[in-house]
Amino acid sequence: MRRTLLTEGHEDFRTAFRSFLLKHAVPHTERWESQGFVDRAFWKEAGAAGFLSFEVPPEYGGLGIDDFRYNVVIAEELVANEVAGDGFALHNDIVTPYLLHWCSPRQQRRWLPGCVAGDTVTAIAMTEPGAGSDLAGISTTARIEGDEVVLDGAKTFITNGTTAGLVLVLARSGEADGRGMTLVAVEEGTAGFEQSRPLHKIGRRAQDTGEMSFTECRVPAANIVGEPGRALELVKRNLPRERLSIAVTAVAGARHAFELALAHCKERQTFGQVLGSHQTVLHRLAEMHTAIEVTASHVDRCVEALNAGELTAEEAAAAKLWATETQWSVTDRALQLFGGYGYMEEYPIARIWRDARVQRIYGGTSEIMAEIVGRGLLR
Amino acid sequence: MRRTLLTEGHEDFRTAFRSFLLKHAVPHTERWESQGFVDRAFWKEAGAAGFLSFEVPPEYGGLGIDDFRYNVVIAEELVANEVAGDGFALHNDIVTPYLLHWCSPRQQRRWLPGCVAGDTVTAIAMTEPGAGSDLAGISTTARIEGDEVVLDGAKTFITNGTTAGLVLVLARSGEADGRGMTLVAVEEGTAGFEQSRPLHKIGRRAQDTGEMSFTECRVPAANIVGEPGRALELVKRNLPRERLSIAVTAVAGARHAFELALAHCKERQTFGQVLGSHQTVLHRLAEMHTAIEVTASHVDRCVEALNAGELTAEEAAAAKLWATETQWSVTDRALQLFGGYGYMEEYPIARIWRDARVQRIYGGTSEIMAEIVGRGLLR
Amino acid sequence: MRRTLLTEGHEDFRTAFRSFLLKHAVPHTERWESQGFVDRAFWKEAGAAGFLSFEVPPEYGGLGIDDFRYNVVIAEELVANEVAGDGFALHNDIVTPYLLHWCSPRQQRRWLPGCVAGDTVTAIAMTEPGAGSDLAGISTTARIEGDEVVLDGAKTFITNGTTAGLVLVLARSGEADGRGMTLVAVEEGTAGFEQSRPLHKIGRRAQDTGEMSFTECRVPAANIVGEPGRALELVKRNLPRERLSIAVTAVAGARHAFELALAHCKERQTFGQVLGSHQTVLHRLAEMHTAIEVTASHVDRCVEALNAGELTAEEAAAAKLWATETQWSVTDRALQLFGGYGYMEEYPIARIWRDARVQRIYGGTSEIMAEIVGRGLLR
Amino acid sequence: MRRTLLTEGHEDFRTAFRSFLLKHAVPHTERWESQGFVDRAFWKEAGAAGFLSFEVPPEYGGLGIDDFRYNVVIAEELVANEVAGDGFALHNDIVTPYLLHWCSPRQQRRWLPGCVAGDTVTAIAMTEPGAGSDLAGISTTARIEGDEVVLDGAKTFITNGTTAGLVLVLARSGEADGRGMTLVAVEEGTAGFEQSRPLHKIGRRAQDTGEMSFTECRVPAANIVGEPGRALELVKRNLPRERLSIAVTAVAGARHAFELALAHCKERQTFGQVLGSHQTVLHRLAEMHTAIEVTASHVDRCVEALNAGELTAEEAAAAKLWATETQWSVTDRALQLFGGYGYMEEYPIARIWRDARVQRIYGGTSEIMAEIVGRGLLR
Repeated sequence: MRRTLLTEGHEDFRTAFRSFLLKHAVPHTERWESQGFVDRAFWKEAGAAGFLSFEVPPEYGGLGIDDFRYNVVIAEELVANEVAGDGFALHNDIVTPYLLHWCSPRQQRRWLPGCVAGDTVTAIAMTEPGAGSDLAGISTTARIEGDEVVLDGAKTFITNGTTAGLVLVLARSGEADGRGMTLVAVEEGTAGFEQSRPLHKIGRRAQDTGEMSFTECRVPAANIVGEPGRALELVKRNLPRERLSIAVTAVAGARHAFELALAHCKERQTFGQVLGSHQTVLHRLAEMHTAIEVTASHVDRCVEALNAGELTAEEAAAAKLWATETQWSVTDRALQLFGGYGYMEEYPIARIWRDARVQRIYGGTSEIMAEIVGRGLLR
Repeated sequence: MRRTLLTEGHEDFRTAFRSFLLKHAVPHTERWESQGFVDRAFWKEAGAAGFLSFEVPPEYGGLGIDDFRYNVVIAEELVANEVAGDGFALHNDIVTPYLLHWCSPRQQRRWLPGCVAGDTVTAIAMTEPGAGSDLAGISTTARIEGDEVVLDGAKTFITNGTTAGLVLVLARSGEADGRGMTLVAVEEGTAGFEQSRPLHKIGRRAQDTGEMSFTECRVPAANIVGEPGRALELVKRNLPRERLSIAVTAVAGARHAFELALAHCKERQTFGQVLGSHQTVLHRLAEMHTAIEVTASHVDRCVEALNAGELTAEEAAAAKLWATETQWSVTDRALQLFGGYGYMEEYPIARIWRDARVQRIYGGTSEIMAEIVGRGLLR
Repeated sequence: MRRTLLTEGHEDFRTAFRSFLLKHAVPHTERWESQGFVDRAFWKEAGAAGFLSFEVPPEYGGLGIDDFRYNVVIAEELVANEVAGDGFALHNDIVTPYLLHWCSPRQQRRWLPGCVAGDTVTAIAMTEPGAGSDLAGISTTARIEGDEVVLDGAKTFITNGTTAGLVLVLARSGEADGRGMTLVAVEEGTAGFEQSRPLHKIGRRAQDTGEMSFTECRVPAANIVGEPGRALELVKRNLPRERLSIAVTAVAGARHAFELALAHCKERQTFGQVLGSHQTVLHRLAEMHTAIEVTASHVDRCVEALNAGELTAEEAAAAKLWATETQWSVTDRALQLFGGYGYMEEYPIARIWRDARVQRIYGGTSEIMAEIVGRGLLR
Repeated sequence: MRRTLLTEGHEDFRTAFRSFLLKHAVPHTERWESQGFVDRAFWKEAGAAGFLSFEVPPEYGGLGIDDFRYNVVIAEELVANEVAGDGFALHNDIVTPYLLHWCSPRQQRRWLPGCVAGDTVTAIAMTEPGAGSDLAGISTTARIEGDEVVLDGAKTFITNGTTAGLVLVLARSGEADGRGMTLVAVEEGTAGFEQSRPLHKIGRRAQDTGEMSFTECRVPAANIVGEPGRALELVKRNLPRERLSIAVTAVAGARHAFELALAHCKERQTFGQVLGSHQTVLHRLAEMHTAIEVTASHVDRCVEALNAGELTAEEAAAAKLWATETQWSVTDRALQLFGGYGYMEEYPIARIWRDARVQRIYGGTSEIMAEIVGRGLLR
């Protein structure tokens, strides 16, 4: 079926971004996998080419394009070209809106140009060793002392965590009977702020994920993003976009895995015929394809709703839940269709499969998504 | 999310059709279940109200509305009001297009007014005891003798089969090395044409399904629909619409079962709390709801494609496969949420569940749908 | 694999019981389905032939056979011969142990001979309209007044409920801060005790299931089974046997459905070959067969554990959960393999499928079973 | 439930083997993971301690223990102690029987003592780049020239392939109209025989898996195992044992993953309570536990059948299919229960999960297993 979501303009953008990736990313991806992070140079090239924080208005160096469909195109091309993309999605889809919508003009002048240019890689630090999806359990503290904020605590599983120059840290500041949270921007090099080496993960190895610790880490109070004590509201307002971003990647990931498997099934001979013509294989391909098409229709519809400002938290949670579970089931079946080859790292499906597994976990596990959707139903 | 498929006009139509059902169908459904068929009177009332074959141009009494979204509204309201709807869908969605697109003006003048008025209930007879989804295995024969066609054979599982006044019969006429098929219109009362009593089915008991036999059954050659020997082409061209029609009903059915279950879960107390607030129940509801929303997005998109003349056989097969499997999984879980009550016929969910099971079978089983989708992928 | 559970003695018993069924049950099953209950005559014939309460010692007319493997054989043959068997299982597997282990000699003298002879059909009434699997929510009361017990309340979903001559009623007697429950035997005809007509169910239609009401129903205090206020302990002690009984029936049911489907797949021709030789069908048969064999190994092992007095509540719950879910998945796939025929009541698979659905619900739903197993793990 | 499969003797053996692993393997496993193979020294220590080829009669240095339950204990302890075990299973469970049952006394004198002592690591080379589960597609050739056999071709995915000193090579020798296969023992260092570096796999990284090539590789005809041209018969006779060996490992693997997850769920706090007490987690644990127990009952029963010489190819295939699919589903859910930690390599579940994935592939994929089981049913 014709896809109605995108215009010619988006497809031109796709062509440009794909060329960019083929030139600046694809030749390096294997090395990035080994070193555990994407080169800083790549961020700058992406910035120079206009692929970072393009939502930012021209006065801060951006393109002023507030259309999530461009983010969709970026996600799809990163996946299709097998380039580590979490950091990009995090920077563009998740952190940029915080800076754009809830920062003061002064903060924007200070941080946005670097984000657009790729000089500043961003991160957002919410998860803690003792508090995963449960933000109410956060124990990192932000103590306001005069015109400074003092941070103490530890964060983990932070995307871009080891390379980020600017980190939005969610910390308990104690308003509202202790439940108040504040978002504080911390710059790399700040005393008392430590960034770990990249964590060793099952997959997404070119994408750095790190731990951070804050030990009596002092930053100017001017670094507070939004109102003190009300950070959870910002987080909640941003979650639909974050989760839809993962859903979009999930559809693209499923499609990529499927296409590799389909090509293999059309080529590989077993028992005297092409693998795909064995009926059980044929039907499995049919089921995978159908699951992807159905999911894609829905996620595209969610993108339209997000652009229209209508996507609810429950809808985004449902999309994330569904799309990532579908991605996993498709990807795992894709690997199986490769037989022994699927288990060999030299075949791309092996890495794709390892990479895919985190999608059901991060940005809120599937179980948390179901909880959110369910509670909405009972209301 | 807002549904973008329908306009206000469709919603007005919905209101009208719902009122019609509440007045003319709902009070009788229990009796129809017992007797095994819908009253002929209901067909005439539906015809008088403009709900039959409305695609037919005004010259033959119709409304000339060629927009499948009206069929969608009809399907949704039949399901939501628990009125047997297969016969309607068969008449409007499946048989009417044959008459409208492949009949001669003379045939149209003869048959269409009755279809519109509800005087003529229609059926299409393809399946045979020895040939289910496998049309190539059909053994009913159509022998052309002068200006007559002689039919011999038997058909089974024919929706509207016992009440139809006009039946399109698919028969082997032997062109093209024996593979040629011809579609012949047979009217009730024709000598040699026998219609059985309604078959006793697991569900859909208000909808008659019957067997037919043709024993040296002679009809005028003028009753041939389309070109002799080329009926399979017509069938194939019509299949996307038939299958999408089932998919639409599947989404509506899933939604109806879900809503009954959700209401029950909000009301029923177990272990000192409302059933729905037990976490496993909550998550199950979330999964069911999500599956329905995702499927609905896709089926709506398919309806747009059908209206645009773009829906392929493979896409329709995928939609039918997906939507009916989803309907089943949702409906079965809905029943489970009712516990022992779900097994009692006095609870609507019991009948809804029995009714739903055939959706994975008729109009081509799920396995046949997967085969069609798969073959398209390998091409 | 050879089955090691049964001895030659059990197989001889099987032969005898099968002959009995072929003579006394099979010719009547269709009529029993229509009337909604099994003839009282059949119970007497079963008693005369030694198939009822054979665990009861000879002094009360029984055979003194305390070996659950005989109950297994009975369950398997009822299923294989398509004879309604819930009432039998209820009488032999569930009620008889209460009478045998927790009744006084005087009570035993009074009730056991009738149970053995088939003069007295038994039932146990636990479930209430407002309390399904949640026994703590029972609201039927048992008030001890002098040497009488006064029962008030309503029960539902009671197997043998409309035909039972002796019913063990679980009622709240209020000891232990209101939580105490007492088991009271009530005989048919007692004033204030009403038995409904058979409920109309999705399946198991030859097996009567009924409602009961108690309106100031007075029975002698001598009818109390076990100690007043401690009935829940008896219930708990009996549950493993009850649940294993359902698991045994589930394996037999799955096997029967599979065998019907396999025979169909070996016979039915589609697309020029036997249905079973289409690879997707072949693999589905393989999966169904494997699931049955695996489940059967485990249930047989549980039977050995029960005979050894070692089967725990958690193990029985796990067996019931697993076996009934497997039965369902196998039976539903079996029906699908029949295509349109599977939806027709004249094919046995249709009734078998309807009958199977309750297994995941009664005796504690699958969700309750998972809860029991889970809590055992967390301890 | 008490496990009836093992005697005290087996449990003593377990204790001994566990001590051995704790001393000689566990301290090295991390290093083995990095280097891609198990130290040769470990094989010698295992040999010295009596854990290799113990089936071999004392005259060749073995213990003459022909009881697969010891192999079961070994498999279970390797898994429970997280020691790479494929090579052991391959050597003991798969290659040793070939040498023991189908080698001439002269061959046995030559090879068995080294196998027992751990001086000779063995492998069996069947799979080829162009022929996975499809042995009929093998293209490596064995040409008999006088008293020599000349091998040409390539093999892949060979367990122990890079470290093996003795490899049984399955090659096409051309008898029976070209379909004849012959098994030829090739020793390391033979001219024309190349062993690759370990392949880089998704998991099982301490276990070397390699490619081999044979270029006009000449070995004495005395190295032919069994009768020339009839190797497929030997392979078929050995397959039940090979597949059961994988099933045994699968049950042990599932159990290990479950136990790690259960411990985590009892410890980890989320949303103010222990993770395991959230009902959806509790039920998931219950389902995983139930699946494992059921599967274990069946696999134990299969071990008894194998010991009795009764396990058929179809039964072994069914056990392998079922046990490995269960292992995967349990292991994947176990990882999910760890949330973000599950994706970190420092948590054992990450490696266990990666390791588990190959089980559905090697020794015949799940699809091949289903094919074997299905064909047995249709016969």
